[in-house]
This record gives sequence, C-alpha cells and structure tokens, in this order.
Amino acid sequence: MKQAVSLYLGIDGGGTGCRAAIWRDGVVGQGAAGPANLTSDFEGGMANLRSAITAAAQSAGLGAAELEQAIGHAGLAGVQTDDMARKVAGQLPGRCCVTEDRDIAIAGALGAEGDGAVLAIGTGSFVGLRRGGTIRAVGGWGLQLSDQASGGWLGRAALAATLEAVDGMRDRTALSEALLARMGGTPQEIVGYAASARPADYGALAPVLVQALEAGDPLARDLFARGAGWLDRALAALGHRLEEPICLTGGLGPRYRALLDRPDRRFVAPLGTPLDGALILARAAGGRA
Amino acid sequence: MKQAVSLYLGIDGGGTGCRAAIWRDGVVGQGAAGPANLTSDFEGGMANLRSAITAAAQSAGLGAAELEQAIGHAGLAGVQTDDMARKVAGQLPGRCCVTEDRDIAIAGALGAEGDGAVLAIGTGSFVGLRRGGTIRAVGGWGLQLSDQASGGWLGRAALAATLEAVDGMRDRTALSEALLARMGGTPQEIVGYAASARPADYGALAPVLVQALEAGDPLARDLFARGAGWLDRALAALGHRLEEPICLTGGLGPRYRALLDRPDRRFVAPLGTPLDGALILARAAGGRA
Repeated sequence: MKQAVSLYLGIDGGGTGCRAAIWRDGVVGQGAAGPANLTSDFEGGMANLRSAITAAAQSAGLGAAELEQAIGHAGLAGVQTDDMARKVAGQLPGRCCVTEDRDIAIAGALGAEGDGAVLAIGTGSFVGLRRGGTIRAVGGWGLQLSDQASGGWLGRAALAATLEAVDGMRDRTALSEALLARMGGTPQEIVGYAASARPADYGALAPVLVQALEAGDPLARDLFARGAGWLDRALAALGHRLEEPICLTGGLGPRYRALLDRPDRRFVAPLGTPLDGALILARAAGGRA
Repeated sequence: MKQAVSLYLGIDGGGTGCRAAIWRDGVVGQGAAGPANLTSDFEGGMANLRSAITAAAQSAGLGAAELEQAIGHAGLAGVQTDDMARKVAGQLPGRCCVTEDRDIAIAGALGAEGDGAVLAIGTGSFVGLRRGGTIRAVGGWGLQLSDQASGGWLGRAALAATLEAVDGMRDRTALSEALLARMGGTPQEIVGYAASARPADYGALAPVLVQALEAGDPLARDLFARGAGWLDRALAALGHRLEEPICLTGGLGPRYRALLDRPDRRFVAPLGTPLDGALILARAAGGRA
C-alpha cells in the first residue's frame, strides 16, 4: 500500500479559468476548465473546479478513492471569508486547504521561501509582499472597487475615456477610435456593452490597449501610467525595500516593467505559475516542502 | 366637447423614482412611483411609470379615454436610443414624446428658453449647456463608465477609498471609519455590498459623505474636489461662457457650489423641477409654450 502522503493536489481557480495538477514525485496529471470566481458564480465555479480535478486525476490514472488520499491546496479567486473556504474545502476531494488566490500566486512566483514582492496583474490584480515567511497584500478586492492596473480596470477605464472623447472632454486618439469602432461606433453601444460586462469582458480589451501603448498612443500611455502609479503606491504602502526582488506576473505584469523601473529596483522572473504555487503549498502542508 | 390640446402630461423618470403631472390651465394632478431607469430594468420601470401616470390621472379626475387625448413629454433615464424611445412612447397614453432625461432637467431648471448651463447631480449626473435653443451635454452615460461627481460615483469612490484605507494605502479618516462600520466592519462586507450594489445603493451613501464634507473630513474633501474637477472640465469642454448662468440641480448639485465658485461665475437657482420641464416641453409640443 502506498503512503497516503505521497499524493498532492494543487488547484488554481480564477476569473478566466481554473487548473488542477497532481504530484507524486513530480507532476503526474493536469486538467483545466472554465472560470472559478466563487463570489460571482459559486455553483458554476465549483462545477468547473470539479471538471479540472477530474481531468487531472484521469490523466494521472487515478480513481476517486485514490484522490481522496491526496493532500491539496486550492487558491481560489473570490474566497473572501473563512466560512466560504470551509464550505469549498468540504466539496473538494482529499484533505484540501482553501485560500484566496494570493498565496499560491506568491508561492508560485517566488518559490517556497524567500523575501520579495509580487505584482500579479491579469484580469484582476493585487500586490503582495513576503518577508520572513509572512505575506501582506493590498488591492485585489474585485473590479467594482479595486483591482487597479488590471486588465479589467484598464479596459473599463479605456471605455470611460472613450465616452469622454466622444463627448469632447478629451482628445480622440487611435485607441479611443479603435474601441469606439469595436463597440459598434456609438456611445450608446459602449453603454450597452458596459451594462452587462464582467471583469473578463473588460479585460478582453487589454490586448488593444497593449498594442496602443506600444504604438505610443497618448490615452494608452495615460492609463498605464495611472496603473503604474497605483502599483508604486502599493509597494510603498507595503514598505517594500529595494533589496527585495520584484516579480511581475499575470498576462499584464511584464507590461508595467518599463513604467516601474527605478535605479536599484531589482526585477526577477517568476519561478513558476500559481498552479506550481498551489503544489508547493500542498507539499509544505504534507511535510515535504 | 373639450379641445383635445388643452390637456398635457409630463413625466420624469429616474433611477430612484418617477413622477407624472397633468396640466389643464395649471397642474391638476400628480402621481409618483418607484424607479424608472429603463436600461437597468425595462419592465419594472414601465410598470412604475404606469403607476405614476394612473395616480396623476386619478388625482385629476381623469379617465383612461380622456388621458388618451393628452399631449405628453416623458424624460426618462436610460433611454439611449431612438428605438427605445419609440418603444416606450407606444406604451404610454396619449401622444407622448420620449427623450432621455437631460432635456426635461434643462427645461425645468432654466425654463422654456434662455441660455445657461445645468449641472444636474443626483444619483447620476450630467452637464448640459443650452445656447440659442440648442442643447449640448456631456456625461450621464451611467455609473459603470460615467456619471462623475454624482451620488453613485461619490459613494462608490468612497467605498473604494475605504478599502485602500483598510489596506494601509491611505489614511483612515472619520468617513472611511464610518463607512467601514456601516458595511459591517470588514472589507469582505464592503466587497459583498458592492457585488450587488446598484447606482442608487451607492448613492444612498451620499448623505454620509455630505456630512463628512461639512465636518472637514479629508477623504470627503478629496472626493468632492475630484467631482468638482470633472464638472469644471465638463463646462470647459462645452465652451461655457462666463455670462451664461450656471444652475446646480439634483440632490447634490448645491453641495458643489463652493467648490465651483470663481470670480464672475454666476449661479442661479433652478426655476423648477425636471417634472416642470416635462410639462414645459409637452406644452411647447402642443403649441402652448
């Protein structure tokens, strides 16, 4: 009989998709499924998590009974309370610790230990600092009130600026014209889009902004500069020290590098993904960090 | 038999409530009902409009057949397209012209004619300028992407700032503490509130901000100053001239007076309400301006 603690399950659930991986002396199976933000859609998110886990187990050749022996860690967007974490853990296989997704992003980017800052900037965003094993973080409260600098935030701000351009309150630029055309050509269509847009919908506009930034579009530069200003304030609020490396992750993180560059700031590439981070935390919980 | 053109119906529909009035040589009946923002809730809004009209007709002693003889004007929040205006007009009694709510706000504030700017700042907001009978306006595209300086915008910005205060990214103030306590005491409860908050929910926080502004709270001053900055930019974009009077309307309009004061700017009190404006436009359409 195998030792039960030799099997680990890592889960990374976010607003655009979720992933699961199984470890037994190395990664032996992986799976993926749709969005798993449990605040915006609990049942749908749980169903996607189960799909990803089942796919990972199948690719590892594991049955349900074996999976119940796993020690797991799930980092999930939208898990804001201990009550919700417990509720989710009860519905996952094995002995699974559930946290919001900051912990796995930091463990994935910086590895199992070591001080440093992680600026995770995808559809959503947060800034975290690990020092002496303790993590503190700011932002990441969701697009309605937070997630500054993220793809959702950039996309929404760009549409708001496009309405101001249509109103004659700011210059029209190639970016505002491109967004207006993409929405159908009228401000009413922009408003209609926004009426039902979720963070991922706004975030889907981010590639247009990145392209405009690279082309030197003044609106794109203004929006990324505002995002970078918030990231700088976040680092300052966390008391980031120059000797602590800064890791830019997520689809948009690297785009902020040039805007955050300062003498003596040290940038490092992420060691791994949030899913790697989930496995790191699962193995640490099992005594095999 | 009475002359058909002697009966006028005015309707003012907004995100927090709707009102109807009937005119026959003076106002002879009024009615009110719940919200009527037709973008956020078409069927519910139409039901409220019908309730307000029925109440106005009853208080005027008018039957449905008589009401069909009325010439009306309805100014409704969320009517963004001609298609929607026609659809709504077809469901209202009499011969009713339907526009978004800017026109009636300006006619109500400035009267049937005369140049001037209207800064309408309630749950939502817009800035309009009437010159030589022509109206141009900016803003007012809804809280998702616009409505700067409004009650909804202030409330949402104050909650976002409160999360930053909790995160240590800005100073805690009496206002941020009051909002945190009101939401339940934790950032998670603020996020939960925002998950389902509509503009009117955010706007319901405005009285707390006004009180804080009067007490000199730095966060409240910062937020109102940002709103005032946008209003100044809006006036500039519309080409407002100093000789044109400025009228601050809506529940929050007068709160911005001190922040907008400049030498030679002339502020005037509104002549009437948006509902008065709807009756003015209905009577103008009937040839009795």
